[in-house]
This record gives sequence, structure tokens and C-alpha cells, in this order.
Amino acid sequence: MANDHIHLNGFTMNCVGHQSPGLWKHPDDNSDAYTDMEYWTDLAKTLEEGKFDAVFIADVLGTYSVFDGSRDTAVREAVQTPVNDPLLPIPAMAQVTDHLGFAATHSVTYTKPYMTAKRLSTLDHLTDGRIAWNIVTSYLEDAAVNLGLEGRIEHDERYDLAEEYIDVCYKLWEQSWEPDAVVKDPTTETFTDPEKVNEINHDGEYFTVPGPHLTEPSPQRTPVLYQAGQSDRGREYAAKHAEAVFTFQPTVDTARSYVEDVRERAAAYGRSPDHLHVFAAIAPIVAPTEEEAQQKYAELEEYVSHEGALALVGGWTDIDFAEYDPDERVEHIESDAIQGIVDSFTKADPDREWTVGEVAAFIGVGGIGVPVVGTPAQIADEMERWVDEAGIDGFNLTEVLRSGTLSDFVEHVVPELQDRGLHREEYTGETLRETMFETGDNVLHEDHTGSAYAYDSKRPAEVPKND
Amino acid sequence: MANDHIHLNGFTMNCVGHQSPGLWKHPDDNSDAYTDMEYWTDLAKTLEEGKFDAVFIADVLGTYSVFDGSRDTAVREAVQTPVNDPLLPIPAMAQVTDHLGFAATHSVTYTKPYMTAKRLSTLDHLTDGRIAWNIVTSYLEDAAVNLGLEGRIEHDERYDLAEEYIDVCYKLWEQSWEPDAVVKDPTTETFTDPEKVNEINHDGEYFTVPGPHLTEPSPQRTPVLYQAGQSDRGREYAAKHAEAVFTFQPTVDTARSYVEDVRERAAAYGRSPDHLHVFAAIAPIVAPTEEEAQQKYAELEEYVSHEGALALVGGWTDIDFAEYDPDERVEHIESDAIQGIVDSFTKADPDREWTVGEVAAFIGVGGIGVPVVGTPAQIADEMERWVDEAGIDGFNLTEVLRSGTLSDFVEHVVPELQDRGLHREEYTGETLRETMFETGDNVLHEDHTGSAYAYDSKRPAEVPKND
Repeated sequence: MANDHIHLNGFTMNCVGHQSPGLWKHPDDNSDAYTDMEYWTDLAKTLEEGKFDAVFIADVLGTYSVFDGSRDTAVREAVQTPVNDPLLPIPAMAQVTDHLGFAATHSVTYTKPYMTAKRLSTLDHLTDGRIAWNIVTSYLEDAAVNLGLEGRIEHDERYDLAEEYIDVCYKLWEQSWEPDAVVKDPTTETFTDPEKVNEINHDGEYFTVPGPHLTEPSPQRTPVLYQAGQSDRGREYAAKHAEAVFTFQPTVDTARSYVEDVRERAAAYGRSPDHLHVFAAIAPIVAPTEEEAQQKYAELEEYVSHEGALALVGGWTDIDFAEYDPDERVEHIESDAIQGIVDSFTKADPDREWTVGEVAAFIGVGGIGVPVVGTPAQIADEMERWVDEAGIDGFNLTEVLRSGTLSDFVEHVVPELQDRGLHREEYTGETLRETMFETGDNVLHEDHTGSAYAYDSKRPAEVPKND
Repeated sequence: MANDHIHLNGFTMNCVGHQSPGLWKHPDDNSDAYTDMEYWTDLAKTLEEGKFDAVFIADVLGTYSVFDGSRDTAVREAVQTPVNDPLLPIPAMAQVTDHLGFAATHSVTYTKPYMTAKRLSTLDHLTDGRIAWNIVTSYLEDAAVNLGLEGRIEHDERYDLAEEYIDVCYKLWEQSWEPDAVVKDPTTETFTDPEKVNEINHDGEYFTVPGPHLTEPSPQRTPVLYQAGQSDRGREYAAKHAEAVFTFQPTVDTARSYVEDVRERAAAYGRSPDHLHVFAAIAPIVAPTEEEAQQKYAELEEYVSHEGALALVGGWTDIDFAEYDPDERVEHIESDAIQGIVDSFTKADPDREWTVGEVAAFIGVGGIGVPVVGTPAQIADEMERWVDEAGIDGFNLTEVLRSGTLSDFVEHVVPELQDRGLHREEYTGETLRETMFETGDNVLHEDHTGSAYAYDSKRPAEVPKND
């Protein structure tokens, strides 16, 4: 891993049961309180107490309507429906914390980069530099239709657009306002020197943005960049732009192969492997004894909505699992899109042949988070193994129950990790980038793609002047 | 006025010197701290202490670049540049208050209604129903260009679009989710009854939105609707949709004429005048004696940036005032757009002929807020006179200095108003709509245009089912 500590994100969403379809029925689940401010401030305090890097907030802009050709299952089982905006709980969470970061999902498909740049700069200001942006291209059909498109943009074109989008953002964040533009000098009646606020004059295939950026430079300028590229094109994007990649890997072996691939790709862009954190998803289920933990897991399984789980996976893969018997082996399903899921499950345990029903049961408890069940020591052992053997930098911890999954982890597993010297005792940096990389840098690392746009003494940027 | 209390909003913006170009140079001004969370939470606490209805947050999505054909003056004097997002301070402000409302400006020009509806519903949830939406159509040329249009949309077409936009929002907010859709019933494994989540199937000229709305009903469903229509088309829109209208009226006489007109128009839509609040803008400058208050005003005037003020007015009117001598009478300027400004100033004092320089000086101290200068009793007298003679319901108080203008008002004028029985001693409602109208209604009043879309026992809505 890139430095001495295991990095931790809490993985959540502004909805009921983000990654655990049906678990809202569990008596200990309070995920229906997602509409309350206190739910979010409590979560933030818990994660900061656990010295997490960040809370990672997913989002969708549509409903899961592939299963049985209808959104009814998703609505009935509250499968990421209803869903609220991911950015708006952040200022309240920042208000009750000092160090926790906030990784916000914001799609490049439906908001212009000029607007997104203003919004994320504002958050970076208000949080004193604790913002990350999870860059996504949207995949749900009805989001596209409701937001004014004829239908979804095709996968590769989404990445062409995402490439130009981040280019516009780099220009706005790194290049538009020179470091000494804001002088606040009453004697010369100059708040900002207009000579140092530059137009970016972007004129591309998807966007025409003269600029300048509307906001003054925030502590991190470019927020920490998160991405979750799984496809070839997605991995390339992550390798070029992401400072944190988030991946679903069912085993240490598949994770190692992913890590090696993405680090190799990053190196091809001249980037240090230390400047790209890889996060795997796990769902920690902890109890004082192994038996109790297994009992707890078994009890959670009873509340899983199998149909809800298949609605979720159906949205990710475009497979309508309602057409298949629960005993059908997933590898027999004819579909290009299925390969990711088949691969994930067959590689997870080559001796096992997964059925549709088994996939539903697996996804139901923790979603893309691999269940890690046991005592605090056993969970710490398993996390250590992933880090050592796969070379990942940390974990996105999915919630099975709100708020128990993460609060139990903070109470029982975090001290165990700290005792082993694997997790920070105190935060050392101020901004999220400092917290994550411990290099003292608030802004993009020098070897980062976006850094080519930046002003500094070593690399005086050549930018057009607005005259 | 519509009920017994004077209603008060603090009028601000996420930028330096919202309505007072040049005043950032004043030693008591701390408006450059707008990037800090504490600035916003302090403001919210001050206004709640003063029992204000709401903090009203303006916004622009571009720069003021008409003056001298350049944005340089606006940049140099920080005339609403730099500017941060208006929605994002709200959750933090809500976190430290219990009753204060938040009127957020959000343009219909650059964000799809499906997205806006999700965002505002989220805020209404997180604030327990304390959100208002200030509906604007954007007027700055470079916003249009940076956000992907060829240029600004023409004024009347902006209103056609705004009309269809609010129609989509009503359908999403009022019609999509039936009142008893969310049941959270584990025994039937139903979080939400899919039969009660309806598509809206909007298919119009500007938008195609099948729906359904992504979020469950928030406390107010439709946020309290603010608007600032001044033109004929704008007034008609306000009369039809707004629950609060905000107007620049330089005198009691012009205000009375505006109030009569807009209430008459509202009545034509079958609306009670009690359900439409009219807010006039004033800039209160208070001191223990009249002499001290006048001295304070004179001192503030010294810091005004005349060029900055003309950059601001230039952005509103499209007049490049740099082409005119400061001694030029504004009524001699040839322009259709100038009429609003000429009218405002000539009507303000028919015996006076305003020059360009005088307009700059006036706008410099409090912007569109008419300066009201004096002792607490004198200011209360003047406010009482406006309410009694013009029939307005309250005031938007512009800031000359952050934070002094509003904190002085709360400390000195609010008690005076309370002693006269003109201002609430305590909040009585929970949601903003309750606070503002004191009718006990959280949702749109029955006579409101958007209420025709609503479900209730009296008006069962006929909506398409999603089957």
C-alpha cells in the first residue's frame, strides 16, 4: 500500500438501504431516517471518531427498472428509491467535524462543468478543503429520459465526454485564477487583480467554456478525485485522473490483479503509485465471538429481499433476472453485460457455481461489499491480509444496517487496527488530500495529470489572458 | 398587510459585498469571510435571534461585464465576483437553527426541473420544511455562453420556459407521490406502495419528464415560492405562482402602486391577498441618535465604488454607463432598458433629476435596498409607514456591511418593533410556510395555482398510473 496506514471510507447514500435491499425491515435498521439532518451529523461524528478518511456518498438520478421491466420492486423494497441529493448533507456534516473528508458523487452527464466546478469549489471552501469528487457517468435509462436525453449515452462516448469534462474542470480550478489574484488591498482599491483572472477559452467537442471560473481558489483547488472504473476504458480514466479508485473485488486474488493493472496504467501516465489509492469494498460484520458473528450474519440474511437484490444488480448489468429461475447458474445467462458479474463470482470461489438466487443472497447483505464476518481480531486479520497480499490501500465499508455496521466497526475493529499500528491514532493533516496522502500537499501532486494546468514556481503555466 | 406581523428576510449572497460595491474596503466589513462556514452559521443565529422569517440568498452564474465592455471593474471591486453556490451554506445554517427559513435562488435556465426538484426536496427534508425557492431566469450573457447556450434566452421566452418548468415541478412535488405511498410495513415487505408512486408523463415544449419524482414527499412538498417579477410578464408570473414577491421600490408611493397591481393580478387567479407576501428592499442604517446615523451613512458613502455600482446596474440594465459622464442625467440616456431605472429614481423624488453619478452613489450603499437612516425608533416609524401606507407585508433587509447591518438591526430595531407589537416575540410554526402565513398550513394553500395538482380529501387529483 501507498503509506503506512489503512485508509477507510464509510460508503453510504442519501437513501434507504443503500447496499442492502430488504434490510430496512430489520428492527435495528434506522435507514429510513436518511431525511433527517441528525442522521448525517451522527454518522459524520462516528466516522471522525473512527479516524476515517472520508464518508463516500453514492448517488443515482433514476430508478432501477430493469427487473421484471418495472420499477415496482425497487420502489416496494426501497432499492435506492426514494433517493435524495448527495451533496446537501455535506455542509451539515462538515459543521460537526474537523477532519473527516466528504467524497461526493456528481455525474458528468447532466450538469455542465462550469456549474459543477462552482459547486465543488464552494464545498471545498466551506469544508476548508475536505472535498473529494466521485466522478461518475450515469447508467440508468430513466435518468437520461427524465433529464432531457433521448436515452442513455453509449458507454465509450460517456468516457469521451468525461475526459473533456475533467479537462474543463482542471482549467477552471487550476488555471483560471492565479495564486496571487486575490489581494484585498484597499489602498489600490483592488479586491482581485483582473489581470490574474484568466479566461480558459475551452472550445471542445462537447463543451464551449470561455470562463473565467466564478469562484476564487479553494484550499485544494481541484477536489480529491475519486473514480470507480472497472471496464478497460474506465480503468484508463482512473489511472489518468483518479487519486482514489474504488473497486468491487470479491477476493484478494482478483483485487491483486486489479491493483497491479491500475498501478501499471497510472505509471504510464508518469504517476507515482503512492499517489493513487485503491479501495476495495467490504461489509464488516463484527461480534465478540466468531459464532455470534456468524449468527448475526445468518440473521441479516433472513431480511434480504432477493427480488430487491436482483433489481439492484439488474440496474448495474441491464439483465432482467426476473426471467431466470433462482436455481439458474449465472454463467448460463446469455449476455455480454453479465460477464462482469459472472467473472466476479466465479473468480471469488472457482470451485463454486453461482446461481441467480445465490447472487441475490450475496448482494443482499452489503451489496458490493464482500462480507467479512468475525471477531474484531478476525476482521483485522482479514483486512491486513487484503492490504498485504493484494496491495490495496484501504476499504470502502458498506453499511448492512444503518447505523450499526459502521458504529460497531468504529467501536470494536478500529481499536484493534490501531493496536496493530495499522490505523491512525490522530489525524495529521487539515485538508482531505493531506489526510489521505500524508505528503503535506493540499493541491494536486506534481505528477498528477491535472497538475500540468497548475501555477507554481516550477511550472509556470501558459494561459491565455483575458484581454 | 396580510397578517399582524412585519415579515423580515435578511438579503444576502454567497460573495463579497452583495449589494454594496466597494464597501469591502470598510474596516468593519468582513464580507471576504463568505468562504467560511462560521460566517454563515453566525448569520443564521443572528437572524433567528431577530425572529426573521428567512435568509434570502441571491445568486448569479456569470460576471458583470457590460461596464466598459469588460468584467475588470467587477473583478477589481468584487462586484458579485467571485461568487459561490447559494444552496450549500443552507444545511450548515439549518444545523444551528430551529425556525429560520432559507430562500434559495435557483435558476430555471441551466438546470433541468427533474434535478432541481430532487435538490429542493432534499433541502426541504433536511431542514424539516424550512425551504423557499426564489425562482429566477438568468440575465447575464456570459453565464449563458459558459453554460452551453449561444446566448441569453430572450426575456419573454425565459418566462415561457419558467411557466412550463414550474408546471413540471408541481407535478413532481404534488402529484407523483400519493400521501400514503410510504408505508414502511415489514409485514407486507413494502416500504413504498408502487401503486401510489405515479409517473407524471409531462411532455411539453421545453421538457419531457415521465417521472416519477425521485424523493418521497417533504414537509412542505412544494417549497415556499419566492419571485421578483418587475416586468409585466414577471408580475403575472409572480401573481400566479409566488407566495412571496420581492420588489425594488424607491418610495412608499411606488410600492403602493406595485402592491395594488400584483394583488389584483393574484386575485384574478383566485388567490387570497393574504397568501401573497410583498417584500420591499431597504438598507437600515441605525445609530443611537439621528446625527450619528447620518454620520454613519456619510462614512459608508466614502467607501462606495462608483464604477463598481455602475458595473452592477449595467449588468441589470445592459447599459454601459462607462460611456456617460457622471453628470449626465440618466433620463437623457437613450435606451429601452433604462426606463426601469429612470422610473425608479424619478418617481422616488419627482423634484430631483438624477445623474449617473448620483445613481452610482445611491446604489453603492445597500444596492436596491432603499437606505433608511436613523434611530431605532425612526427606522421603526419608517417601516411602519411603508407597511401601513403601501400595504406591503415586510422587508428584505440588504447588507451594507457584513455583518454589522443585520446584527445592528437585530440588536436595536427588532426590540423596538416588538415593543410596538409589530414583530413576533417567538416563532409559532415549524415549517417556513407556517412561520410566514400563520395559517397552520405546511403545504400550498388551497387557493394556490400549484394546489390544483395536490392530493387531499377535497380535491382528489386525477393522475396517470404507472402501469
